[in-house]
Amino acid sequence: MSNEKICLTGVKPTGMPHLGNFIGAIKPAIENVKNSDMEGYFFIADYHSLITVHDGEQLRSDIYEVAATWLAAGLDPEKAVLYKQSDIPEITELNWIISCFASKGLMNRAHAYKAKKDKNAEEKRDEDYGINMGLFSYPVLMAADILFMNTKYVPVGEDQLQHIEIARDIASSFNHKYGDILTLPEAIVSKEENKLLPGLDGRKMSKSYNNHIPCFIPEKKLKKMINKITTDSTPPEAPKNPDDSLIFDIYKFFATKEEQDALAKRYQEGIGWGYAKLELFEVVNRELKPMREKYDALMADKSQIDKILADGAAKIRPIAQENLRRIKKAIGVSN
Amino acid sequence: MSNEKICLTGVKPTGMPHLGNFIGAIKPAIENVKNSDMEGYFFIADYHSLITVHDGEQLRSDIYEVAATWLAAGLDPEKAVLYKQSDIPEITELNWIISCFASKGLMNRAHAYKAKKDKNAEEKRDEDYGINMGLFSYPVLMAADILFMNTKYVPVGEDQLQHIEIARDIASSFNHKYGDILTLPEAIVSKEENKLLPGLDGRKMSKSYNNHIPCFIPEKKLKKMINKITTDSTPPEAPKNPDDSLIFDIYKFFATKEEQDALAKRYQEGIGWGYAKLELFEVVNRELKPMREKYDALMADKSQIDKILADGAAKIRPIAQENLRRIKKAIGVSN
Repeated sequence: MSNEKICLTGVKPTGMPHLGNFIGAIKPAIENVKNSDMEGYFFIADYHSLITVHDGEQLRSDIYEVAATWLAAGLDPEKAVLYKQSDIPEITELNWIISCFASKGLMNRAHAYKAKKDKNAEEKRDEDYGINMGLFSYPVLMAADILFMNTKYVPVGEDQLQHIEIARDIASSFNHKYGDILTLPEAIVSKEENKLLPGLDGRKMSKSYNNHIPCFIPEKKLKKMINKITTDSTPPEAPKNPDDSLIFDIYKFFATKEEQDALAKRYQEGIGWGYAKLELFEVVNRELKPMREKYDALMADKSQIDKILADGAAKIRPIAQENLRRIKKAIGVSN
Repeated sequence: MSNEKICLTGVKPTGMPHLGNFIGAIKPAIENVKNSDMEGYFFIADYHSLITVHDGEQLRSDIYEVAATWLAAGLDPEKAVLYKQSDIPEITELNWIISCFASKGLMNRAHAYKAKKDKNAEEKRDEDYGINMGLFSYPVLMAADILFMNTKYVPVGEDQLQHIEIARDIASSFNHKYGDILTLPEAIVSKEENKLLPGLDGRKMSKSYNNHIPCFIPEKKLKKMINKITTDSTPPEAPKNPDDSLIFDIYKFFATKEEQDALAKRYQEGIGWGYAKLELFEVVNRELKPMREKYDALMADKSQIDKILADGAAKIRPIAQENLRRIKKAIGVSN
């Protein structure tokens, strides 16, 4: 009953992704599926975004931007499935059903809730200040995202292991009452150590540090941002250590081995930071250019995105409906 | 946008209702709608039952029993709508949406959760021991039950006022962000003082006191149960006070004014308790007999119930879909 072929990836729409997202999450996820015999299922978790985004225009454009990004980055909708969570009502229906098998204690200990609560304590506010039920119960929705398809494998980062554990716990409680209905999902933990792209100031690239480069800004703007990378005042002619250079650190993610060796040699011979940044721009732009063109084309005609998402939902729903039918029969609300 | 014609009543399937439910809730709810120009919408809250009933066969039979009871008691599916909550996926979808606008603090203070928590404290257990997320968040589902139809009026008992307040609070928060989309429901508080049927031991009739008479037990069994009513050892020929008689208290709910006067007179002349119980049985059975026959016929051919519930869902869903479409457009997950 479990679907061992499905490899599920949730994508939260939070506006245009940045290069750190691309290198650390988007690219490996797409390649991961391409290089395996698994079926890639990618969903836009718009109902998760609703926990914090209470602006209709904002959420709508976030959804288009994230869909266009993944498609531009190589997600092939003929081979993988891209769908929007809110297009699958079976997910929210299952969300309620399994909430009756999710202990509240599990939610009390969930990371996102605890972080908010601790912050409230720090600032001497009521512990649940500003916390809505979406935030508190989102691990249940996340479990529904996984369980509704009887998904077996879910690739996650270390920080998301807890979600898979909660989903397994809920599925176990359910199966304990009704027999072997839900599949217990398994996490595939990705090793991301060498996939952390540094940002313009050398820290991990992140929107919250404001040191990020959005993926599909125009070429000129990209060049300008790369020029902002922090460097020291070593004179151009002085030999430089590539292993101690932020520019080189970023370069490695986009250049071939030969290119890296060649630039390392120029570092040792002495290179001006301006030239090094230009080299970096060239390789980054080489990878981004075709994607940017695809992204721009999709954003200029959003009906293509609508169609791809509608096709995705049409592929998913029959499976979702059949699974939900079995679940509803088991719990006794239908025959 | 609000639907001022809708009068909504939720019915929790917890097995065959007893006479106290019939007198205190079922009969007045049906008559209430019959005597007004409102459209009666009655729904079987099976997804609420799932919070506690984790046995498929049990829940399935509870649903049939409650549906058959309401139909037998006079709910006319041609004039009112009877539907099952789990047949309307728009409700659980809205449940998630509005959970992002329901503050957790509201749930902390909800009666059912607080009662469970207090009991855990009393018994020195973890405060959330045995509490699932269905129980904790059921006021949100209750709000969705009301809001998905833009219901204006909800008849409730005093003890349920809090649910309407929570639904109003959630709808306000939502409308504050997106404009006038959800209707703020209003409670119609029913005066139930003189609708509380006493049970076999004189306390309020309730399953938890085990002093109840199920509505549709066979005639012989009904007679036997009525014979169990607690009486004192006053000799048959002694004059008796009808105002101080449990038998007479119950009798009043089923007998005409003339019958009550006649029995009061016999009380004053002296009547044996056995005879008084027989009189009571006659009037109770007179009211129940045609209902019992209808109930038995429905339970003998459940496909009639299936059909009525399917028809109810078919009437509700187009309205639900249209409302949800507007809501999803407002929050930005669809166009």
